[in-house]
Amino acid sequence: MTNFADFQATFGPKIDAQLAMDLRQASTDTAFADMMAYAVLNGGKRLRPLLSLAVMASYQQPITSQVLQLATAVEWVHSYSLVHDDLPAMDNDMFRRGQPSVHAKYGEANAILVGDALLTGAFSVVTTANFKTSQAAAISNETLLTIVQDLAHFSGASGMVIGQVHDMQNHGQSTQPETAWLLEAVYTPKTAALLMFAAKLGSQLALDNETNQPNKARMVQEMTQFGLAFGLAFQIQDDLDDFDQDDLEDVSALPHLIGVAAAGARRDLYIQDARQRLTNITALSQTFDRTLLDDFLNLIGD
Amino acid sequence: MTNFADFQATFGPKIDAQLAMDLRQASTDTAFADMMAYAVLNGGKRLRPLLSLAVMASYQQPITSQVLQLATAVEWVHSYSLVHDDLPAMDNDMFRRGQPSVHAKYGEANAILVGDALLTGAFSVVTTANFKTSQAAAISNETLLTIVQDLAHFSGASGMVIGQVHDMQNHGQSTQPETAWLLEAVYTPKTAALLMFAAKLGSQLALDNETNQPNKARMVQEMTQFGLAFGLAFQIQDDLDDFDQDDLEDVSALPHLIGVAAAGARRDLYIQDARQRLTNITALSQTFDRTLLDDFLNLIGD
Repeated sequence: MTNFADFQATFGPKIDAQLAMDLRQASTDTAFADMMAYAVLNGGKRLRPLLSLAVMASYQQPITSQVLQLATAVEWVHSYSLVHDDLPAMDNDMFRRGQPSVHAKYGEANAILVGDALLTGAFSVVTTANFKTSQAAAISNETLLTIVQDLAHFSGASGMVIGQVHDMQNHGQSTQPETAWLLEAVYTPKTAALLMFAAKLGSQLALDNETNQPNKARMVQEMTQFGLAFGLAFQIQDDLDDFDQDDLEDVSALPHLIGVAAAGARRDLYIQDARQRLTNITALSQTFDRTLLDDFLNLIGD
Repeated sequence: MTNFADFQATFGPKIDAQLAMDLRQASTDTAFADMMAYAVLNGGKRLRPLLSLAVMASYQQPITSQVLQLATAVEWVHSYSLVHDDLPAMDNDMFRRGQPSVHAKYGEANAILVGDALLTGAFSVVTTANFKTSQAAAISNETLLTIVQDLAHFSGASGMVIGQVHDMQNHGQSTQPETAWLLEAVYTPKTAALLMFAAKLGSQLALDNETNQPNKARMVQEMTQFGLAFGLAFQIQDDLDDFDQDDLEDVSALPHLIGVAAAGARRDLYIQDARQRLTNITALSQTFDRTLLDDFLNLIGD
């Protein structure tokens, strides 16, 4: 399968089914589990889990049940971040994808706690991924621990959380930020970090048994940089799509700083970098087929 | 060392030093790392890490640098929960231990994000515990994964978070709750869960290399139940100490439901249960010395 739309049509529903199954067991309190499910099962595109699975497929690796479960952990983190970002003290959004946001529906205290529970639950999803698996198909403990460590790193105070901290500062200030600061201190941690995690996760799982592959570390690193380049291009495209609306809200996004044409050129540079990463990996691995991930990049501007 | 006050005087400062060291590296943004440190380094008693270390000491096991680091992870979780509990939408507390609470000092958005970062950071603390250790002294990957899993379980939507959800419901309702519901749906997850985690962690680390100990699972289980019994007795004593104040706030705590004398009797039953757990472990292990943990129980009502 080399067309990303076909891939999404096949695996999007599987990702949603995995999320729904794990969310049903997420709490001893079924009313609270329902709130958690409301926050996650709201029609998201599942871009991050799909990226992990697309990396696996590009390495011709099977998408087993434990790989599917591991790929969904990042969606718990992404969902919690949206619940907390929507809070009155943050972006104060009463709607999310056309439905009442979690705090609008269940109150602010529950929204804070739903977010906390989703973040915590992401780590349960990772650590229980092997539970229904035969020993032969199990992911190694070393790889699972690396995934936990990466999830904490890319989600936390040097990753997604600090991106939101800086984004709040950016919303609040009257002067325009530096371009480099916006890209490095906001876009990279807030948007790209979880995509880096997803890309790295896919590589690590694909290469879990390749202990003799001398280029393993470099292949994982190149794919992580693919996630970074995709994330930055994706965010800039999002800014371009929202340009008129942001203008009204007096937000300093990249097109406001350097103009629409220059922002588009910057986006194209990041897409070019992402394609170069695929070229680099192709040179390192005989089993890697870049076609699906090349098509994944076409999502930008879609 | 069999006196808990002496133990605390020795290891309390080591716990604080470990927390301070890890918090300095917690974020790429030093101003935000300072906010995180403010939330944690505020004179807490460090009861949970001390319990883990006391269990290690009771098994005559050395408190290595990686054991110390692992023991502090729960304090990141405990601290995040206090930051979020203090928020205006929750308990709306402007002070914590005589100092401005995190949202009072840094604003509500930063307080939400500081809490999120501390929760995420707890998992980094666990996964990086082996990093400065020789291979011989390293904790097994299997045990580290179990610790991650337990931390997520006891902190999350079947643990501490659901305890806070139920506590918020309890504050809001006009009718008195059932005693059993208060103990099982509020006190056990909200207060006892993290103490169960800490007690279990200490046992797991103490028995990490005892792969041939046939009673290992039972010993870990008994110590986890020790943490539960201690946690419930500790919470009831806290209620008794706050009885007059809670009365003004119209909170339904155990002494309000069954009276001060009956609550005191219930507390004593839990202490008795905790001592029985120590008796049970003593019968299973020749190296276990109960003296320090017997004295730990004397903290209640101190």
